[in-house]
Order: sequence, then structure tokens, then C-alpha cells
Amino acid sequence: MPDGKIFHMTPEEFRKRGHEVVDWITEYQKRVESLPVLSTAKPGQIRSSLPANPPVQGEPFSTILADVERLIMPGITHWQSPNFFAYFPANASGPSILGELLSAGLGVQGMLWATSPACTELETHVLDWMADMTGLPARFKSGGAGGGVIQDSASSAVLCALLAARERATGFQTNEAGCNRTLVAYTSPHAHSSVEKAVKVAGIGRQQLRFVEADRTGAMRSEILAQLIQVDRRDGLEPFFVSATLGTTSSNGFDPLPQIAQICREDGLWLHVDGAMSGSAAVCPEFRHLQDGVELADSYAFNPHKWMFTNFDCDCFYVADRATLIKTLSVLPEYLRNQASESGAVIDYRDWQVPLGRRFRALKLWFVIRHYGVEGLRHHIRRHVELGQQFAGWVKSSADFELVAPAPLNLVCFAHHAGDEFNRQLLGSLNQTGKVYLTHTILNGRFALRFCVGQTNTEEIHVRNAWDLIQETAGHQLRHSREK
Amino acid sequence: MPDGKIFHMTPEEFRKRGHEVVDWITEYQKRVESLPVLSTAKPGQIRSSLPANPPVQGEPFSTILADVERLIMPGITHWQSPNFFAYFPANASGPSILGELLSAGLGVQGMLWATSPACTELETHVLDWMADMTGLPARFKSGGAGGGVIQDSASSAVLCALLAARERATGFQTNEAGCNRTLVAYTSPHAHSSVEKAVKVAGIGRQQLRFVEADRTGAMRSEILAQLIQVDRRDGLEPFFVSATLGTTSSNGFDPLPQIAQICREDGLWLHVDGAMSGSAAVCPEFRHLQDGVELADSYAFNPHKWMFTNFDCDCFYVADRATLIKTLSVLPEYLRNQASESGAVIDYRDWQVPLGRRFRALKLWFVIRHYGVEGLRHHIRRHVELGQQFAGWVKSSADFELVAPAPLNLVCFAHHAGDEFNRQLLGSLNQTGKVYLTHTILNGRFALRFCVGQTNTEEIHVRNAWDLIQETAGHQLRHSREK
Repeated sequence: MPDGKIFHMTPEEFRKRGHEVVDWITEYQKRVESLPVLSTAKPGQIRSSLPANPPVQGEPFSTILADVERLIMPGITHWQSPNFFAYFPANASGPSILGELLSAGLGVQGMLWATSPACTELETHVLDWMADMTGLPARFKSGGAGGGVIQDSASSAVLCALLAARERATGFQTNEAGCNRTLVAYTSPHAHSSVEKAVKVAGIGRQQLRFVEADRTGAMRSEILAQLIQVDRRDGLEPFFVSATLGTTSSNGFDPLPQIAQICREDGLWLHVDGAMSGSAAVCPEFRHLQDGVELADSYAFNPHKWMFTNFDCDCFYVADRATLIKTLSVLPEYLRNQASESGAVIDYRDWQVPLGRRFRALKLWFVIRHYGVEGLRHHIRRHVELGQQFAGWVKSSADFELVAPAPLNLVCFAHHAGDEFNRQLLGSLNQTGKVYLTHTILNGRFALRFCVGQTNTEEIHVRNAWDLIQETAGHQLRHSREK
Repeated sequence: MPDGKIFHMTPEEFRKRGHEVVDWITEYQKRVESLPVLSTAKPGQIRSSLPANPPVQGEPFSTILADVERLIMPGITHWQSPNFFAYFPANASGPSILGELLSAGLGVQGMLWATSPACTELETHVLDWMADMTGLPARFKSGGAGGGVIQDSASSAVLCALLAARERATGFQTNEAGCNRTLVAYTSPHAHSSVEKAVKVAGIGRQQLRFVEADRTGAMRSEILAQLIQVDRRDGLEPFFVSATLGTTSSNGFDPLPQIAQICREDGLWLHVDGAMSGSAAVCPEFRHLQDGVELADSYAFNPHKWMFTNFDCDCFYVADRATLIKTLSVLPEYLRNQASESGAVIDYRDWQVPLGRRFRALKLWFVIRHYGVEGLRHHIRRHVELGQQFAGWVKSSADFELVAPAPLNLVCFAHHAGDEFNRQLLGSLNQTGKVYLTHTILNGRFALRFCVGQTNTEEIHVRNAWDLIQETAGHQLRHSREK
């Protein structure tokens, strides 16, 4: 017996509207290069164009889609523009978008193996593939004591690593009794802000996080790490965790992993390695030397949603000892008990993350790997590095600009000789053109522009045009300031 | 100058393949009702059908899509089947799926207002809409001191609430100095497992979480809460946080919010309210009495990804005092500094959650609200409640079955008179038919089947067929056990 009025979109209506949205995205992909990269919306501008109240009656889909163009697009900064050189990239691709679509269409929950076995098993499998693809050791694969899981972000990964380390260090007693201010963690001042956030979230306290001095390239000084650990132990504290970075956010600095790993081994500290963007480079054998030492880490994370053509969110998080992670994060209420879990033969990924629920996360990564193949991924990542190096070369041979940090891969930190204020203005002027989007950092006390090559469709022409624009804008600004 | 070989999917190829995936989902929607709800895959079965190594060369998209059918579908439990009555629903809809698709296609990062203003402003706006739609007080809206944000799950929401409460209670000193085992939190034994998980994650320790006795309906006994708080204070501890539930996971029990809120007010405790599934009911005015007292809470969360036709993940999280939440979760590295943030005129949602990055989360919720209109959402949620009540009525008038808990909305907990072992077998038999999927819980020491009506396309016929199947299977089992 039908239920009278139905407001749901029927399958055939879904087909029609789905084709329209796909067509919209297709046209967006074609025109994105011509759009101003950075939105010029003012605070409150987008909201002021939206009705104060939600509609009482449903509206036609065509109206909604037209409003995306009319109301939303003015407030979009185009991360998928090939002229996007800001922050780290969030590069997407056709197969990834379609994997996400299919995941939404299937609409399964992957909290337990039993709630959709394929959701869990494909994830375990693809993360084993990825370990091989990026030269990670077998200990991070599911065949041994370790394994991989997809987290939403490297922030969540470092939090999970920190929690597992906390419990390992205290015989799983902190979960029970709470933190007591004796555990001490270490990272570099150039580490991602998520390390400090995790230390706060986990109840360790920022005062128990040591920012180990870095050298001028942004690399942690391992001999200082060793000294600090000694001092803390002497003071009755309990060093338990180091987060090292492969490719810092500011300047793509690399911590000396082999030395840090050695110290962690000797002192029994958990070593987490954050390779958020640069980890993707390891798909190319010639860049794997940058992650030497990762084979000694307890956990490792990198983000295909930054630089492997997989739309956000998709962070690959590996642990060498999954039992510790699971014991740390497992809480089992009656309503989730099931035979498969109790058999011990399956993975329940709810115990590998903070949230309980999870969507079919691996589908889009599987689509990406299969569409590109390992060789295709290598080709494009290699090409981004080449373009980054080309840009770095132009900076080096320029009379007006210089590199402010080494540029080992696709991120170039540079500055004009005319000083911080000049560079700050230059950045603003460049971004106002709408032709490029760059961001900044401060390195060794100096304001630096960051130029990161990684958007899916960035080619030589975009990098060359950006460099021309940078030179031209700086030249104009210099003449203008001299005239004043 | 082109870059030689390109492995990317071109826009026109995306259009073609996009239409194919939309068509695939359309056909899936048409046939899902006929598929066995619960996957019969054995542990390892899906993995064993996947190649051991990733492809070196890319593969045609048609092969990938064919493999979804061939390799993945056998391992899918169909959460989008109208015969899905297990756990809580994860009901999706056409407009939601297309909103997710568009979010993936735009591929923007919403960590800061500046990284895509529309992403932030639409979210703030839609969450204000939702507050009005569900009768939440103005203090949870962005016009005053509060505001809403989309989290991935109610688990993450309760963690954020707990952290903000922890910092408020300690003058923001726990972030700095770490936890010291004096803070005490309270919840009911029927609260979601995420409360215990959050207490562990945040370094409070499970020993400082009191499970306040509940009555036989699953509601927290507020007089016991008051007593426990007194005892803890007398013992020199610091009560700081209560998590109350509107619609427990086991049995849809409702904690007495007005009384709990009063106690929290008097004692200065942070009150978080978890309305994960049942919060959606408040879109219908006639069910709002169930959330009386929420106007006194410090924070509140419910999940449109459960019961408001919005695919996972989409949790609406509200706080009455956003400044405390932001101060708790904010860490500001140089590379994220920008004029808009420093002006104080914008919201940066990175400071409202644990991860840094976030996708364009509000788009699908906006699509859902506009497609259905408030009246459309009311109609379907009301209808699910009617069907739940109809089922409960059949159970009540049955000679063989009885209700094991009150059924105020769409979740019915029931059991056959023949005892726990009989019911356990019955559940297994029902799920093995592939015609329905139910799960269980244990209430007052007794095994109960849970029947939750909430999948988008569930109509009277599905509920009626399920009840017929339950009676028939139980009858058969009863005869079989007597014959032995």
C-alpha cells in the first residue's frame, strides 16, 4: 500500500538531476582555470544573499542548482584551479570524485566489518597496496602485526598515534585513571599545529610538549632531542612520544628520521611520522630516500587528499602494532556485539579511529589507483616536482629574489630582496589579481612566499605565467615605492 | 606548452563516466529492495577476490565499474534497503548524494573562512536554519554567543563538548598543564559508547566517569546524579560535565533533561545533550516535548545522517558559548594567519573541531532542506514514527511477543516470550533470510530485538512484511524446538 504523498527524489529523477550535476562539474572543470583563484567575497556577503528562513515547501532541483552558480560561486576559492599554489594542494581527479559519488550512493556504514564487509576489506587491501606503492616496510601491512586505516586527516592520525603511545607507555592505565602530567612528548617547532592540538586534546598538556630546536632548514636537531629526553627523565618525567615530519608545512623541511628513530628505539619512545603532503612523493622510487628511517617508526601518516588526486578526506594512517591502537580505542557496547567481531577474524575500523561511524572510504582511493596505475601516479607527481624545481631554478637565477629554504620537492619558499613589508605587499597584490593564489610563512624570522605545485592540472604554462606575474608585479611595486 | 603524456580523466571523459556512475546508482536504487539486506560474505572473502598488487598501468573505467558489481557488491550490507531495520538508519536521498557529489567536484577546503568563504557561511546559515527547524533556542544560533558546526559524528561532537567543558572548568589550564585526575563526568549506562571513548581520549580517565543509575525505561535518575555530584565534591573532586541522551541507542530512552539541566545549572556543570537519531524528530512540532530542557544545555548534537535523508557524515553540533569552544581548540601557526581571521569578523571552523581540514560539508544538507522543504521532512519523519507505532501496536496485541521498552518514536525493542536463547536464534534466522535486517540489545538483563524504522524508502508494506516474517519465523522455530 503506497504511503500517499512522497517527497523523495525518484530514481529516474535522480538520474536526470545526477546527469545535470555531472554536467555542471564538467563545465566547472573546463572553466576553472579562467576564474579568479581567490574569492573576493567580503565577510557576510554570501550569507546576506541567502533567505533568512528555510523553505516550508520543497523547491525544484533546477532552482537549487542555479543558486549554486548565483549564490555560492562568488564565495568559492578555487582549490582545483591549476593556478592554485597556496598552502598544500587538495588535488582531486575524475575517478576520485566518482568514487566519492558511488560511496554516497551505496550509503553504507563501515563501523564494523559486519556492517558491510567489502567496506572494511577493500580498505585493508588498498592500504596494503599503498604501503607497497610508497616503499613502506612490511610491518605496516595487515599480514603482520600492523596495518593501515583511512583517517579524515593527518590531525586525526597524529591524535590516534599519540593516544596509542600514551596507553602503551602507561600499560593502558591512562584510559582508566586519566593523565597525570608526567608524560612528555617531543616535536619540532616546524611540525604541524595538529601535534600541539593533539597533546592538548589528549590531556597531556602543552607544557609537556617540547619543541626541539630545528636547524635553519627546518629539520629537528636530533642531538637536542636526545638531551631533552635525558633531562626530562632525570626530572622524573616520562618521555613517551616523538612526532617527526617528512616535509614540514612551512617549508617542506625533513627531520632526520634515522637518528630520531634510533633515539626512540633506545629510549622506548613511540615514533610517529607525519608525511602529510610529501609522503606521496614516495610513490616515485627516486624520492624514497627522503623517508629513510620510516621503517623504524611506530606509526606513519600521509594524505592522498593533498597530492595524490584523491579529494578530501583521505589520510592513510599506518601502525606497526595494531593491537595497541585497537586496545586504546575500543569500547564495546552490547548493541555492537556480533559473531564476526568475536571470532577475531575481522577488522572493525571503529576501533582504529575516534568516531564510531565511517563511510565507504576506500572506494575513491581504489578508483584513483586503478585509473592512473602506479606509473600514472608516478608520472604526475614527478612532473610536479620537476615544475617545482624549475620554479626554484628561476628564483635562484633571479637578481631580485632568493630561496629562503631548500626546495627538495614541489614547495618553494622564496622572497624578494626588498624586505618583509615589500614581500607582504607583493603577496597581497598577486592574490588580488585573481590569476594566482600563493600563501606565506615566516622562516628564520623572515617573511617568505610559499609556492606549492600540486594541483592536478598544473602544467608548465601555469608555473611560467605565475613566475612572469610575480616578476612583473614586484617590478611594478618596486618602481612605485621608489617614486614615492 | 603541453606536458606530454596525461593520465588525468578529461572533463569530457568525466562527463561520460559520471553519467555511467549516476546510472549505476539509479539502477541500484531500483533494485536494492530485492537484494539480501545483510551480506553473506565470509571473513576474507572480498579480499581474496582482489589482486595482490596494484596495477602498474591504468585500467579502463568500465573495468573498474564492472568490478564494483563483481567484487564489491557481494560484500555490501544494504543500509539503503527499505528492509533495513538494524542499528540506527543511515538514510540517504537523491539531493543529498548530489550535494556530496558537488562538494567533491568543487573540492574546496573549508578550514578557514578565507579558504572558501561560501563553505563557511553556508554552514553557519544552514545550521541556524536547522536550529529554527527543530525548535532549538536562539542561544544556539550564530546571532548571539553560540553557533552550530557540522561534525563528522556525534562521537566527535561529544568529544569537542567534553574538551570545551574541561577547559571552562579549569580556566583553560588543562590544555596547558594537562589533566590531573580531579575532573569528574557523568552519564547514563545507556549513553552511547562515545561518551566513554571521549573521556578516555581527553585524558579524564574512565574512573572519573560515573554511570548514573537509570530507571527501567533507560532514563537517567536525576536524583542519583545530584547525589553523586555531592559525594564527588565532598571527596575533593571536581564535577564538570554531564552527557544526557535524547533517544538512547539501545532502546530510545530519554533522560529527564529539565531536572538534569537544573542540577547542572546549580552546580556549574556543562550539560551536553546527545540527540543522535531522535533529534531529527523535533522537526515535527508534536515531538518537540521530548527535548524539553535542551534550551538549558551548553551543547547539543544530532545527526541528519541518521534520520534526515542526508548521507554520512553530517552531525549538527551546537554550542551556547562558541568563544569557549574556539579557545579550547584553536592553535594558530603562522602559515594559517590571514586578514579575515584577524579581523574577528569571520568564523574559522578549524577551531570548532579536532581535524584542521574540512570539505564543503553544508552543501548536501542545504540541498536536502531545499529539496524537501520543512513540510516534506516533517511528512516523512512523521510517517516513520507512525510505522514504528504501528509495529509496536502489533507487538503489543500479539500473544507471543511483548515490548521490552517504551517505544516513543520509531525504534521498537521487543522479544518473544520464549526466552533469550530463542530470541537470539530468531534474530539470526531472520537476518539469514536476507529479507530483513534487525539487530539486538540487552535491556534489564534481557535479550531484545531492535526494530528501527527510518530508511528513506521504508513504507507500510515493508514493515508489514517484516512483522509477518517475524511471526512466521518464530512460529516455525517454536514448532521445531517442541519437536526436538
